[in-house]
Amino acid sequence: MYVQIRAETTRRFLLEAAATLFDEKGYAGTSISDISAHSGRTSGAIYFHYASKEKLALAIVEEHFATWPHLISRYRQPGRPALEKLVGLSFEVARAFRDDIVVRAGARLWAERKAIDAQLPAPFLGWIEAVTQLLEEAARNGELAADVPPAATAHGIVCSFFGLHTVSDALEGRRHIEERLHDLWTLLLRGLQAEPDPAGLLDRVR
Amino acid sequence: MYVQIRAETTRRFLLEAAATLFDEKGYAGTSISDISAHSGRTSGAIYFHYASKEKLALAIVEEHFATWPHLISRYRQPGRPALEKLVGLSFEVARAFRDDIVVRAGARLWAERKAIDAQLPAPFLGWIEAVTQLLEEAARNGELAADVPPAATAHGIVCSFFGLHTVSDALEGRRHIEERLHDLWTLLLRGLQAEPDPAGLLDRVR
Repeated sequence: MYVQIRAETTRRFLLEAAATLFDEKGYAGTSISDISAHSGRTSGAIYFHYASKEKLALAIVEEHFATWPHLISRYRQPGRPALEKLVGLSFEVARAFRDDIVVRAGARLWAERKAIDAQLPAPFLGWIEAVTQLLEEAARNGELAADVPPAATAHGIVCSFFGLHTVSDALEGRRHIEERLHDLWTLLLRGLQAEPDPAGLLDRVR
Repeated sequence: MYVQIRAETTRRFLLEAAATLFDEKGYAGTSISDISAHSGRTSGAIYFHYASKEKLALAIVEEHFATWPHLISRYRQPGRPALEKLVGLSFEVARAFRDDIVVRAGARLWAERKAIDAQLPAPFLGWIEAVTQLLEEAARNGELAADVPPAATAHGIVCSFFGLHTVSDALEGRRHIEERLHDLWTLLLRGLQAEPDPAGLLDRVR
Protein backbone atom coordinates (compact mmCIF):
# COMPACT_ATOMS: atom_id res chain seq x y z
CA MET A 1 0.00 0.00 0.00
CA TYR A 2 2.73 2.43 0.98
CA VAL A 3 4.74 1.51 -2.12
CA GLN A 4 1.65 2.01 -4.26
CA ILE A 5 1.07 5.50 -2.86
CA ARG A 6 4.71 6.33 -3.45
CA ALA A 7 4.48 5.08 -7.04
CA GLU A 8 1.41 7.28 -7.59
CA THR A 9 3.26 10.29 -6.19
CA THR A 10 6.22 9.64 -8.48
CA ARG A 11 3.96 9.19 -11.50
CA ARG A 12 2.26 12.51 -10.74
CA PHE A 13 5.60 14.24 -10.18
CA LEU A 14 6.91 12.99 -13.53
CA LEU A 15 3.64 13.87 -15.25
CA GLU A 16 3.88 17.48 -14.07
CA ALA A 17 7.59 17.73 -14.96
CA ALA A 18 6.81 16.46 -18.47
CA ALA A 19 3.77 18.77 -18.72
CA THR A 20 5.96 21.79 -17.95
CA LEU A 21 8.30 20.93 -20.83
CA PHE A 22 5.57 19.90 -23.31
CA ASP A 23 3.73 23.15 -22.56
CA GLU A 24 6.85 25.19 -23.23
CA LYS A 25 8.51 23.33 -26.10
CA GLY A 26 5.82 21.10 -27.57
CA TYR A 27 5.89 17.38 -28.23
CA ALA A 28 8.62 17.30 -30.88
CA GLY A 29 10.78 19.73 -28.89
CA THR A 30 10.84 17.61 -25.71
CA SER A 31 12.79 14.37 -25.22
CA ILE A 32 12.76 11.84 -22.39
CA SER A 33 16.28 12.99 -21.51
CA ASP A 34 15.03 16.61 -21.24
CA ILE A 35 12.36 15.35 -18.81
CA SER A 36 15.05 13.43 -16.93
CA ALA A 37 17.21 16.56 -16.63
CA HIS A 38 14.23 18.71 -15.59
CA SER A 39 12.90 16.23 -13.01
CA GLY A 40 16.21 14.93 -11.64
CA ARG A 41 15.07 11.31 -12.27
CA THR A 42 16.83 8.90 -14.60
CA SER A 43 15.42 8.09 -18.03
CA GLY A 44 15.10 4.50 -16.78
CA ALA A 45 12.82 5.65 -13.95
CA ILE A 46 10.67 7.57 -16.44
CA TYR A 47 10.38 4.55 -18.74
CA PHE A 48 9.48 2.41 -15.72
CA HIS A 49 6.41 4.57 -15.04
CA TYR A 50 5.54 5.52 -18.64
CA ALA A 51 6.59 3.07 -21.33
CA SER A 52 7.28 5.73 -24.00
CA LYS A 53 7.11 9.43 -24.78
CA GLU A 54 3.83 8.76 -26.63
CA LYS A 55 2.37 7.09 -23.50
CA LEU A 56 3.48 10.00 -21.33
CA ALA A 57 1.82 12.50 -23.73
CA LEU A 58 -1.31 10.35 -23.80
CA ALA A 59 -1.41 10.27 -19.97
CA ILE A 60 -1.25 14.09 -19.87
CA VAL A 61 -4.05 14.48 -22.43
CA GLU A 62 -6.17 11.94 -20.53
CA GLU A 63 -5.49 13.74 -17.26
CA HIS A 64 -6.52 17.02 -18.93
CA PHE A 65 -9.78 15.44 -20.10
CA ALA A 66 -10.40 13.88 -16.67
CA THR A 67 -10.43 17.36 -15.10
CA TRP A 68 -13.79 18.32 -16.57
CA PRO A 69 -16.48 15.78 -15.56
CA HIS A 70 -15.98 16.56 -11.85
CA LEU A 71 -16.07 20.30 -12.51
CA ILE A 72 -19.12 20.01 -14.75
CA SER A 73 -21.03 17.94 -12.19
CA ARG A 74 -20.39 20.64 -9.61
CA TYR A 75 -22.05 23.16 -11.95
CA ARG A 76 -25.00 20.86 -12.55
CA GLN A 77 -26.20 21.29 -8.94
CA PRO A 78 -29.51 23.10 -8.61
CA GLY A 79 -29.76 26.43 -6.80
CA ARG A 80 -28.57 29.01 -9.33
CA PRO A 81 -29.95 30.15 -12.68
CA ALA A 82 -28.61 27.85 -15.41
CA LEU A 83 -27.13 30.63 -17.54
CA GLU A 84 -25.19 31.88 -14.51
CA LYS A 85 -23.86 28.36 -13.98
CA LEU A 86 -22.82 28.17 -17.64
CA VAL A 87 -20.97 31.48 -17.51
CA GLY A 88 -19.37 30.65 -14.13
CA LEU A 89 -18.20 27.28 -15.46
CA SER A 90 -16.62 28.95 -18.51
CA PHE A 91 -14.59 31.31 -16.31
CA GLU A 92 -13.37 28.44 -14.16
CA VAL A 93 -12.29 26.49 -17.27
CA ALA A 94 -10.59 29.59 -18.71
CA ARG A 95 -8.56 30.01 -15.52
CA ALA A 96 -7.56 26.32 -15.62
CA PHE A 97 -6.39 26.75 -19.23
CA ARG A 98 -4.30 29.70 -18.11
CA ASP A 99 -2.96 28.40 -14.77
CA ASP A 100 -3.02 24.57 -14.61
CA ILE A 101 0.11 23.10 -16.16
CA VAL A 102 -1.45 19.69 -16.96
CA VAL A 103 -4.46 21.36 -18.60
CA ARG A 104 -2.19 23.69 -20.59
CA ALA A 105 0.13 20.89 -21.71
CA GLY A 106 -2.82 18.64 -22.54
CA ALA A 107 -4.29 21.37 -24.75
CA ARG A 108 -1.01 21.91 -26.57
CA LEU A 109 -0.42 18.18 -27.06
CA TRP A 110 -3.95 17.79 -28.37
CA ALA A 111 -3.33 20.62 -30.88
CA GLU A 112 -0.17 18.77 -31.98
CA ARG A 113 -2.01 15.41 -32.01
CA LYS A 114 -1.20 14.62 -35.64
CA ALA A 115 2.51 14.49 -34.76
CA ILE A 116 1.93 12.04 -31.84
CA ASP A 117 1.77 8.34 -32.57
CA ALA A 118 -1.05 7.54 -30.12
CA GLN A 119 -4.85 7.60 -30.22
CA LEU A 120 -5.89 10.68 -28.21
CA PRO A 121 -9.42 11.06 -26.81
CA ALA A 122 -11.93 13.08 -28.89
CA PRO A 123 -12.57 16.49 -27.38
CA PHE A 124 -15.48 18.91 -27.57
CA LEU A 125 -18.29 16.33 -27.55
CA GLY A 126 -18.45 16.22 -23.73
CA TRP A 127 -18.49 20.01 -23.62
CA ILE A 128 -21.22 20.30 -26.24
CA GLU A 129 -23.33 17.83 -24.26
CA ALA A 130 -22.77 19.65 -20.95
CA VAL A 131 -23.61 23.04 -22.46
CA THR A 132 -26.69 21.60 -24.18
CA GLN A 133 -27.97 20.34 -20.82
CA LEU A 134 -27.42 23.71 -19.13
CA LEU A 135 -29.25 25.46 -21.99
CA GLU A 136 -32.13 22.98 -21.69
CA GLU A 137 -32.29 23.74 -17.97
CA ALA A 138 -32.26 27.47 -18.80
CA ALA A 139 -35.15 26.92 -21.25
CA ARG A 140 -37.18 25.08 -18.59
CA ASN A 141 -36.56 27.96 -16.14
CA GLY A 142 -37.64 30.60 -18.67
CA GLU A 143 -34.15 32.14 -18.71
CA LEU A 144 -33.53 31.38 -22.39
CA ALA A 145 -34.94 33.45 -25.26
CA ALA A 146 -37.58 31.71 -27.38
CA ASP A 147 -36.32 30.07 -30.59
CA VAL A 148 -32.86 29.28 -29.18
CA PRO A 149 -32.27 25.61 -30.09
CA PRO A 150 -30.13 24.15 -27.25
CA ALA A 151 -27.96 21.66 -29.18
CA ALA A 152 -27.01 23.86 -32.17
CA THR A 153 -26.46 26.81 -29.83
CA ALA A 154 -24.28 24.74 -27.49
CA HIS A 155 -22.12 23.80 -30.48
CA GLY A 156 -21.63 27.49 -31.32
CA ILE A 157 -20.81 28.41 -27.71
CA VAL A 158 -18.20 25.66 -27.40
CA CYS A 159 -16.59 26.71 -30.71
CA SER A 160 -16.49 30.36 -29.59
CA PHE A 161 -14.95 29.43 -26.27
CA PHE A 162 -12.18 27.29 -27.75
CA GLY A 163 -11.53 29.82 -30.51
CA LEU A 164 -11.06 32.44 -27.81
CA HIS A 165 -8.33 30.31 -26.26
CA THR A 166 -6.53 29.80 -29.58
CA VAL A 167 -6.57 33.50 -30.39
CA SER A 168 -5.67 34.62 -26.86
CA ASP A 169 -2.82 32.11 -26.76
CA ALA A 170 -1.46 33.27 -30.13
CA LEU A 171 -1.80 37.02 -29.56
CA GLU A 172 -1.21 37.57 -25.86
CA GLY A 173 -0.17 34.34 -24.12
CA ARG A 174 -3.68 34.09 -22.55
CA ARG A 175 -2.91 37.04 -20.27
CA HIS A 176 -6.25 38.81 -20.86
CA ILE A 177 -8.37 35.68 -21.17
CA GLU A 178 -10.83 36.74 -18.46
CA GLU A 179 -11.54 40.18 -20.01
CA ARG A 180 -11.86 38.56 -23.44
CA LEU A 181 -14.28 35.97 -22.09
CA HIS A 182 -16.28 38.77 -20.45
CA ASP A 183 -16.55 40.51 -23.87
CA LEU A 184 -17.50 37.24 -25.59
CA TRP A 185 -20.33 36.59 -23.13
CA THR A 186 -21.53 40.17 -23.56
CA LEU A 187 -21.97 39.36 -27.26
CA LEU A 188 -23.50 35.89 -26.77
CA LEU A 189 -25.84 36.65 -23.87
CA ARG A 190 -27.58 39.40 -25.87
CA GLY A 191 -29.04 36.65 -28.02
CA LEU A 192 -29.40 33.99 -25.34
CA GLN A 193 -31.23 35.67 -22.48
CA ALA A 194 -35.04 35.88 -22.44
CA GLU A 195 -34.59 39.37 -20.96
CA PRO A 196 -31.16 40.50 -22.18
CA ASP A 197 -28.97 41.89 -19.40
CA PRO A 198 -25.43 40.58 -20.01
CA ALA A 199 -23.78 43.14 -17.71
CA GLY A 200 -26.05 42.20 -14.79
CA LEU A 201 -25.48 38.48 -15.20
CA LEU A 202 -21.71 38.91 -15.58
CA ASP A 203 -21.63 41.05 -12.42
CA ARG A 204 -23.42 38.34 -10.44
CA VAL A 205 -21.05 35.62 -11.68
CA ARG A 206 -17.64 37.25 -11.20
CA MET B 1 10.70 36.86 -69.25
CA TYR B 2 9.61 33.46 -70.55
CA VAL B 3 12.06 31.76 -68.17
CA GLN B 4 10.72 33.83 -65.31
CA ILE B 5 7.11 32.82 -66.05
CA ARG B 6 8.16 29.19 -66.23
CA ALA B 7 9.97 29.50 -62.91
CA GLU B 8 6.84 30.98 -61.36
CA THR B 9 4.75 28.11 -62.73
CA THR B 10 7.18 25.57 -61.30
CA ARG B 11 7.26 27.32 -57.92
CA ARG B 12 3.45 27.27 -57.80
CA PHE B 13 3.34 23.62 -58.89
CA LEU B 14 5.79 22.64 -56.14
CA LEU B 15 3.94 24.78 -53.59
CA GLU B 16 0.68 22.97 -54.28
CA ALA B 17 2.34 19.53 -54.25
CA ALA B 18 3.91 20.33 -50.88
CA ALA B 19 0.61 21.77 -49.59
CA THR B 20 -1.19 18.52 -50.43
CA LEU B 21 1.28 16.53 -48.31
CA PHE B 22 1.52 19.04 -45.45
CA ASP B 23 -2.29 19.15 -45.27
CA GLU B 24 -2.47 15.37 -45.08
CA LYS B 25 0.55 14.44 -42.96
CA GLY B 26 1.61 17.65 -41.23
CA TYR B 27 4.98 19.33 -41.13
CA ALA B 28 6.91 16.64 -39.23
CA GLY B 29 5.33 13.87 -41.32
CA THR B 30 6.43 15.31 -44.68
CA SER B 31 9.99 15.29 -46.07
CA ILE B 32 11.49 16.94 -49.13
CA SER B 33 11.91 13.47 -50.64
CA ASP B 34 8.15 12.81 -50.11
CA ILE B 35 7.46 16.06 -51.99
CA SER B 36 9.88 14.94 -54.69
CA ALA B 37 8.10 11.59 -55.07
CA HIS B 38 4.66 13.24 -55.07
CA SER B 39 5.58 15.97 -57.60
CA GLY B 40 7.89 13.95 -59.85
CA ARG B 41 10.62 16.63 -59.48
CA THR B 42 14.04 15.96 -57.97
CA SER B 43 14.93 17.11 -54.46
CA GLY B 44 17.57 19.31 -56.08
CA ALA B 45 14.87 21.10 -58.12
CA ILE B 46 12.84 21.65 -54.97
CA TYR B 47 15.84 23.06 -53.09
CA PHE B 48 16.57 25.30 -56.09
CA HIS B 49 13.17 26.96 -55.73
CA TYR B 50 12.78 26.75 -51.93
CA ALA B 51 16.00 26.69 -49.94
CA SER B 52 14.67 24.41 -47.17
CA LYS B 53 11.57 22.64 -45.85
CA GLU B 54 11.10 25.55 -43.40
CA LYS B 55 11.15 28.04 -46.30
CA LEU B 56 8.63 25.97 -48.23
CA ALA B 57 6.31 25.84 -45.21
CA LEU B 58 6.76 29.58 -44.69
CA ALA B 59 5.88 30.23 -48.37
CA ILE B 60 2.65 28.23 -47.98
CA VAL B 61 1.65 30.09 -44.81
CA GLU B 62 2.43 33.44 -46.49
CA GLU B 63 0.41 32.42 -49.55
CA HIS B 64 -2.48 31.47 -47.23
CA PHE B 65 -2.32 34.89 -45.56
CA ALA B 66 -2.05 36.66 -48.95
CA THR B 67 -5.43 35.20 -49.97
CA TRP B 68 -7.42 37.43 -47.63
CA PRO B 69 -6.69 41.11 -48.34
CA HIS B 70 -7.99 40.83 -51.91
CA LEU B 71 -11.10 38.98 -50.74
CA ILE B 72 -11.70 41.45 -47.91
CA SER B 73 -11.37 44.47 -50.22
CA ARG B 74 -14.02 42.96 -52.48
CA TYR B 75 -16.40 42.81 -49.50
CA ARG B 76 -15.59 46.40 -48.55
CA GLN B 77 -17.35 47.73 -51.68
CA PRO B 78 -20.49 49.75 -50.98
CA GLY B 79 -23.89 48.59 -52.19
CA ARG B 80 -25.00 45.95 -49.69
CA PRO B 81 -25.83 46.11 -45.98
CA ALA B 82 -22.60 45.71 -43.99
CA LEU B 83 -23.83 42.76 -41.90
CA GLU B 84 -24.73 40.89 -45.09
CA LYS B 85 -21.22 41.54 -46.39
CA LEU B 86 -19.74 40.24 -43.14
CA VAL B 87 -21.78 37.04 -43.24
CA GLY B 88 -21.13 36.55 -46.97
CA LEU B 89 -17.39 36.99 -46.44
CA SER B 90 -17.41 34.40 -43.65
CA PHE B 91 -19.04 31.80 -45.91
CA GLU B 92 -16.50 32.44 -48.66
CA VAL B 93 -13.63 32.04 -46.19
CA ALA B 94 -15.19 28.87 -44.78
CA ARG B 95 -15.38 27.34 -48.25
CA ALA B 96 -11.72 28.28 -48.89
CA PHE B 97 -10.73 26.57 -45.64
CA ARG B 98 -12.58 23.48 -46.79
CA ASP B 99 -11.63 23.42 -50.50
CA ASP B 100 -8.39 25.38 -51.19
CA ILE B 101 -5.37 23.18 -50.60
CA VAL B 102 -2.96 26.06 -49.95
CA VAL B 103 -5.36 27.62 -47.43
CA ARG B 104 -5.89 24.25 -45.72
CA ALA B 105 -2.16 23.46 -45.57
CA GLY B 106 -1.36 27.00 -44.40
CA ALA B 107 -3.86 26.64 -41.56
CA ARG B 108 -2.42 23.29 -40.49
CA LEU B 109 1.18 24.53 -40.68
CA TRP B 110 0.22 27.58 -38.65
CA ALA B 111 -1.34 25.33 -35.99
CA GLU B 112 1.93 23.37 -35.91
CA ARG B 113 4.01 26.58 -35.93
CA LYS B 114 5.89 25.77 -32.72
CA ALA B 115 7.48 22.77 -34.47
CA ILE B 116 8.64 24.85 -37.48
CA ASP B 117 11.92 26.71 -37.26
CA ALA B 118 10.77 29.87 -39.07
CA GLN B 119 9.04 33.10 -38.09
CA LEU B 120 5.43 32.77 -39.32
CA PRO B 121 3.19 35.82 -39.78
CA ALA B 122 0.78 36.70 -36.92
CA PRO B 123 -2.77 35.78 -37.76
CA PHE B 124 -6.15 37.08 -36.57
CA LEU B 125 -5.20 40.77 -36.29
CA GLY B 126 -6.06 41.50 -39.93
CA TRP B 127 -9.37 39.67 -39.52
CA ILE B 128 -10.24 41.52 -36.32
CA GLU B 129 -9.53 44.82 -38.07
CA ALA B 130 -11.60 43.92 -41.16
CA VAL B 131 -14.57 42.76 -39.03
CA THR B 132 -14.32 45.89 -36.85
CA GLN B 133 -14.59 48.07 -39.97
CA LEU B 134 -17.63 46.18 -41.25
CA LEU B 135 -19.30 46.51 -37.82
CA GLU B 136 -18.53 50.25 -37.79
CA GLU B 137 -20.13 50.53 -41.23
CA ALA B 138 -23.15 48.56 -39.92
CA ALA B 139 -23.39 50.97 -36.97
CA ARG B 140 -23.35 54.00 -39.32
CA ASN B 141 -26.11 52.39 -41.42
CA GLY B 142 -28.29 51.69 -38.36
CA GLU B 143 -28.02 47.91 -38.93
CA LEU B 144 -26.23 47.26 -35.63
CA ALA B 145 -27.99 47.05 -32.26
CA ALA B 146 -27.20 49.89 -29.85
CA ASP B 147 -24.47 49.17 -27.28
CA VAL B 148 -22.56 46.75 -29.54
CA PRO B 149 -18.92 47.92 -29.31
CA PRO B 150 -17.36 47.17 -32.73
CA ALA B 151 -13.78 46.26 -31.74
CA ALA B 152 -14.54 43.94 -28.76
CA THR B 153 -17.38 42.35 -30.74
CA ALA B 154 -15.17 41.81 -33.80
CA HIS B 155 -12.69 40.00 -31.55
CA GLY B 156 -15.44 37.65 -30.35
CA ILE B 157 -16.71 37.00 -33.88
CA VAL B 158 -13.23 36.13 -35.17
CA CYS B 159 -12.64 33.78 -32.21
CA SER B 160 -15.99 32.06 -32.82
CA PHE B 161 -15.27 31.64 -36.50
CA PHE B 162 -11.83 30.11 -36.01
CA GLY B 163 -13.07 27.92 -33.16
CA LEU B 164 -15.75 26.60 -35.50
CA HIS B 165 -13.04 25.50 -37.92
CA THR B 166 -11.01 23.76 -35.22
CA VAL B 167 -14.04 21.87 -33.92
CA SER B 168 -15.40 21.04 -37.38
CA ASP B 169 -11.97 19.82 -38.49
CA ALA B 170 -11.59 17.62 -35.38
CA LEU B 171 -15.11 16.16 -35.34
CA GLU B 172 -16.17 15.88 -38.97
CA GLY B 173 -13.31 16.83 -41.32
CA ARG B 174 -15.05 20.18 -42.04
CA ARG B 175 -17.76 18.40 -44.03
CA HIS B 176 -20.65 20.31 -42.43
CA ILE B 177 -18.86 23.62 -42.08
CA GLU B 178 -21.52 25.61 -43.97
CA GLU B 179 -24.44 24.33 -41.84
CA ARG B 180 -22.40 24.92 -38.68
CA LEU B 181 -21.58 28.45 -39.78
CA HIS B 182 -25.27 29.03 -40.49
CA ASP B 183 -26.10 27.95 -36.90
CA LEU B 184 -23.30 30.13 -35.47
CA TRP B 185 -24.59 33.23 -37.28
CA THR B 186 -28.12 32.45 -36.09
CA LEU B 187 -26.76 32.72 -32.54
CA LEU B 188 -24.56 35.79 -33.13
CA LEU B 189 -26.97 37.84 -35.27
CA ARG B 190 -29.66 37.72 -32.57
CA GLY B 191 -27.44 40.02 -30.52
CA LEU B 192 -25.93 42.00 -33.39
CA GLN B 193 -28.87 43.16 -35.49
CA ALA B 194 -30.78 46.33 -34.61
CA GLU B 195 -33.91 44.45 -35.65
CA PRO B 196 -33.07 40.78 -35.11
CA ASP B 197 -33.91 38.59 -38.11
CA PRO B 198 -31.06 36.09 -38.52
CA ALA B 199 -33.05 33.75 -40.79
CA GLY B 200 -33.94 36.57 -43.19
CA LEU B 201 -30.39 37.84 -43.45
CA LEU B 202 -28.97 34.33 -43.91
CA ASP B 203 -31.49 33.64 -46.69
CA ARG B 204 -30.42 36.78 -48.53
CA VAL B 205 -26.74 35.90 -48.27
CA ARG B 206 -26.72 32.26 -49.29
